[in-house]
Amino acid sequence: MGIRLGDHQYGKAENRIVRIQRDTARHEITDVNVSTCLRGAFEDAHLTGDQHAVLPTDTQKQTAYAYAKTVGLASIESYALALATHFVDDVEPVSGARVEVEQYGWTRVDADGTGAGHDHTWVRSGQEIRTAAVTVEGPADARRTWVTGGLKDLVILKSTGSEFHGFLQDEFTVLEPTNDRVMATALEAQWRFAGTDVDWNATYAGIKAAMVAVFAELQSLALQQTLYEMGRAVLEQFEDVVEVRMSAPNKHHFLYDLGRFGIDNDNEVFHADDRPYGLIQASVIRDDAPDAGSAWQQYSGLV
Amino acid sequence: MGIRLGDHQYGKAENRIVRIQRDTARHEITDVNVSTCLRGAFEDAHLTGDQHAVLPTDTQKQTAYAYAKTVGLASIESYALALATHFVDDVEPVSGARVEVEQYGWTRVDADGTGAGHDHTWVRSGQEIRTAAVTVEGPADARRTWVTGGLKDLVILKSTGSEFHGFLQDEFTVLEPTNDRVMATALEAQWRFAGTDVDWNATYAGIKAAMVAVFAELQSLALQQTLYEMGRAVLEQFEDVVEVRMSAPNKHHFLYDLGRFGIDNDNEVFHADDRPYGLIQASVIRDDAPDAGSAWQQYSGLV
Amino acid sequence: MGIRLGDHQYGKAENRIVRIQRDTARHEITDVNVSTCLRGAFEDAHLTGDQHAVLPTDTQKQTAYAYAKTVGLASIESYALALATHFVDDVEPVSGARVEVEQYGWTRVDADGTGAGHDHTWVRSGQEIRTAAVTVEGPADARRTWVTGGLKDLVILKSTGSEFHGFLQDEFTVLEPTNDRVMATALEAQWRFAGTDVDWNATYAGIKAAMVAVFAELQSLALQQTLYEMGRAVLEQFEDVVEVRMSAPNKHHFLYDLGRFGIDNDNEVFHADDRPYGLIQASVIRDDAPDAGSAWQQYSGLV
Amino acid sequence: MGIRLGDHQYGKAENRIVRIQRDTARHEITDVNVSTCLRGAFEDAHLTGDQHAVLPTDTQKQTAYAYAKTVGLASIESYALALATHFVDDVEPVSGARVEVEQYGWTRVDADGTGAGHDHTWVRSGQEIRTAAVTVEGPADARRTWVTGGLKDLVILKSTGSEFHGFLQDEFTVLEPTNDRVMATALEAQWRFAGTDVDWNATYAGIKAAMVAVFAELQSLALQQTLYEMGRAVLEQFEDVVEVRMSAPNKHHFLYDLGRFGIDNDNEVFHADDRPYGLIQASVIRDDAPDAGSAWQQYSGLV
Repeated sequence: MGIRLGDHQYGKAENRIVRIQRDTARHEITDVNVSTCLRGAFEDAHLTGDQHAVLPTDTQKQTAYAYAKTVGLASIESYALALATHFVDDVEPVSGARVEVEQYGWTRVDADGTGAGHDHTWVRSGQEIRTAAVTVEGPADARRTWVTGGLKDLVILKSTGSEFHGFLQDEFTVLEPTNDRVMATALEAQWRFAGTDVDWNATYAGIKAAMVAVFAELQSLALQQTLYEMGRAVLEQFEDVVEVRMSAPNKHHFLYDLGRFGIDNDNEVFHADDRPYGLIQASVIRDDAPDAGSAWQQYSGLV
Repeated sequence: MGIRLGDHQYGKAENRIVRIQRDTARHEITDVNVSTCLRGAFEDAHLTGDQHAVLPTDTQKQTAYAYAKTVGLASIESYALALATHFVDDVEPVSGARVEVEQYGWTRVDADGTGAGHDHTWVRSGQEIRTAAVTVEGPADARRTWVTGGLKDLVILKSTGSEFHGFLQDEFTVLEPTNDRVMATALEAQWRFAGTDVDWNATYAGIKAAMVAVFAELQSLALQQTLYEMGRAVLEQFEDVVEVRMSAPNKHHFLYDLGRFGIDNDNEVFHADDRPYGLIQASVIRDDAPDAGSAWQQYSGLV
Repeated sequence: MGIRLGDHQYGKAENRIVRIQRDTARHEITDVNVSTCLRGAFEDAHLTGDQHAVLPTDTQKQTAYAYAKTVGLASIESYALALATHFVDDVEPVSGARVEVEQYGWTRVDADGTGAGHDHTWVRSGQEIRTAAVTVEGPADARRTWVTGGLKDLVILKSTGSEFHGFLQDEFTVLEPTNDRVMATALEAQWRFAGTDVDWNATYAGIKAAMVAVFAELQSLALQQTLYEMGRAVLEQFEDVVEVRMSAPNKHHFLYDLGRFGIDNDNEVFHADDRPYGLIQASVIRDDAPDAGSAWQQYSGLV
Repeated sequence: MGIRLGDHQYGKAENRIVRIQRDTARHEITDVNVSTCLRGAFEDAHLTGDQHAVLPTDTQKQTAYAYAKTVGLASIESYALALATHFVDDVEPVSGARVEVEQYGWTRVDADGTGAGHDHTWVRSGQEIRTAAVTVEGPADARRTWVTGGLKDLVILKSTGSEFHGFLQDEFTVLEPTNDRVMATALEAQWRFAGTDVDWNATYAGIKAAMVAVFAELQSLALQQTLYEMGRAVLEQFEDVVEVRMSAPNKHHFLYDLGRFGIDNDNEVFHADDRPYGLIQASVIRDDAPDAGSAWQQYSGLV
């Protein structure tokens, strides 16, 4: 009955890189959180403590900052592709690399009231965090690459247009059915691309818009239904995307009982509860999607 | 050498109230976090455990939700004024009440692409949290009232237009002076009003815009200078305001040393550090401001 | 090219249940965070919004609280086993259930100084969070069950006995090798049991002690080596366990440069940095471990 | 109607310093979070941007790390006294300095099972965070010094021995009185010392023990009463202490309604709710306490 090393990976998590483009007086800002992860022949480091095959996590950090300048951050997907490919191609013991990126949004301030936006001042907009994960495996002549894009913490709420009834009941069921409720979530979604020849930024904006539109306009019979339709809309509108995975907490807004004080409350005053919350997870996929391979093998837990 | 009860206050903190206005098909949302606090003759509760004078914190909660309907949340300042006044006027042992409110921003989604915004769906915009604190003291014929508005977590960054040099040096000084750096903060500000006859929402928007404009447009010699000029702009533009208090962490963005790899980095790639951070606090006040009284006596620590 | 629903699951996350045993004057406390998740024939809920097969998440919550009384919380593993089995056996559309539990530690206060501990007062000890996840699949006559135990947020540090040298170098490598450094992590570990006939609480205590002992006593050549030896010790000492998975941030403690001020600093004063951090992940497994099946298919992300 | 600079202060917040004592093989660890703050003649920095009087926050950081070595961290109070005094005495424009410190607890691991504790390995115990704040003002011949100690995040719970009844009722009161409830809080307390000739570490341990003992043993009629008695016990037992301030969230544990399922719940199963929470604040003070002066003028909000 032997004992052996199983799966293992290592890297540097949460490099907080801010990249300013200042070629003209009108600067651009890209604000990211980068985690790099190497997979390969690192058994000796675990079994005997011999580090000869281990590229230090500090080196991975230096590389991540250097690539922010040399490759740039035109999109987080293209940056992560370059960085992951470098590790696999240029570091001998590395057979696979994963780069996970969070991106925080900034909005130009309207300091002069013209709406043009200031040249070099922004406020963090914070509507959602954009994410991407790139996994590269194998030598150049047998290369496999997976790219996923995504978002998280997109807090979205509709004050009507949501129902929930006709559900299964057992001896512990006390919930009342409803034909009109607040529905709110903090959406996390990730989508897998078929290839890498993609207009990353335009596609991101399009996917987010498509999901938000479905959430708003679908008369919802359950959060389950809304999620499925959101994923379906993405697949229908974006040929590059072959799978969408979503995780959606049902952020409960409980109608507050004001009737006991003689006050009407016709879906006007709610208590936004913290915990517990419903948590619905679903994926939508093309019948002919290529196999997911290592696409979903996470590293940092952030993406 | 006696021992006695000193200052004391109590209440219900962080009532998470969401108010929907649905008089027409175009709904409105107000999302707040309300803390109520009572001051008065509560010695017996402390000294003997006798609760006859203590209005339960649960009752304060019920009242906060009820007032969200009966008074409404046209502005957080007006709501807090009504709620605090109720406690002082209608609950006999209460000599003073403080109501602190945080408000979270929501933005209508553009589901149909027209820019009109959806009637009943929003995303949390999260640019900053608006705050207000109202303190009411004394019987109706000797009433004193203080209102402060504010904001927090306004993360703002400029990629140039900021210097820092000519500072004092001692044996522990190793910092290099700079003529061009990134300056960023997560601004917290509170402003005290002279009275209560104010257009609260318009004033809030105006004050935020004024502060943001100064941050963007002033060539900064130090965060200290920027804060003073922000406060001064508010006092100059808003007659209703008599004092501005600001607390601003200097969120350091350190230029990353890429030169050792033979890569130029002309203020392009930065490391956004977490801790420690500079922390600058300043107030700007009118010479003839009325006394602050209880205006700044905090309760929850949130506002 | 069709589009279809892929994997999906749903439930109620983060039920914050506190269970007091008060059969005698010496009470016991169990403080847990329970997430329940159902898998099965819920396609209609997604595809058409028909909820006939959906047991509401609210019902799952009621059940979790009820089972805290009827089954009790003698261990989080036994509680989760009962709850997951109930959903699979008693709720017709459910083919699989996963229950994830976090448990928070409490320590009796020593109010009288005797060391006996108070009968009904505790402080939250907070050393680490104990976790468990139970997955039950299939009808009773084809039942499969997986139990994992674990811990997270075990912050552990050694001030010597840790080296790091002999590592791979490339053009971005600037790290200096060291023969003596601080090594610290916030350990997350999960271990998979072969069966369910286990003394859960004693095993938990034993596994934690075994891991801590290795961390302390092994002269470490890398965090990778330490993790492997920790996992190996668990498998060697606990026959019930067939696999251990670990995720360990390398919480960097950088020696502070005081030499520029003429002050020696011989591994005495460190800066505890926040981000980025190395992140090392490894598993150790028996050669003859049964297949993991659904054991590692997460739900809430908390366990 | 002029506009002028009001109160202002600045410094470096959250220096995360870890100090190891390694004079013998049995090491000691002190883990702190230090914030330094200067007050004085800094008007020019605000009004004109002239930094000649401003000692950079970076310099304050260097000094905080240097003093961790040269002065040491025998106690956080003595360290903060030395650091604050240095700034006032040695930096000309500084008229007052405040140093705030958080300290995190570590416990030796019992790697060999003897109970002796490992020589150089600890786990973070996390029961509570110890705090201190030192304020020094004026030149040496007119020196004033205030020291406060404290703790925060001491999560403490009693499963019986707590009542709440006989309270004031109005039209919004629906709370039921109770003779037996769970009482829990996350205590924050700060105590002011009369002088600086104090055995800081022993006093800290004694004060914490005294407060915990009262919480455990007092049959509580309200959290208000418990707080007062805790503060009184401290003042009675510790001559050096002249005032105690406490802030205590009432972390509600609601008895879960299992009766609707035919299940008894005699104070056995509770829901630990997040928000809102009661928040009770009180101080207890000696009649002859010296004036508090600047003792309570906070800086970072952490202490």
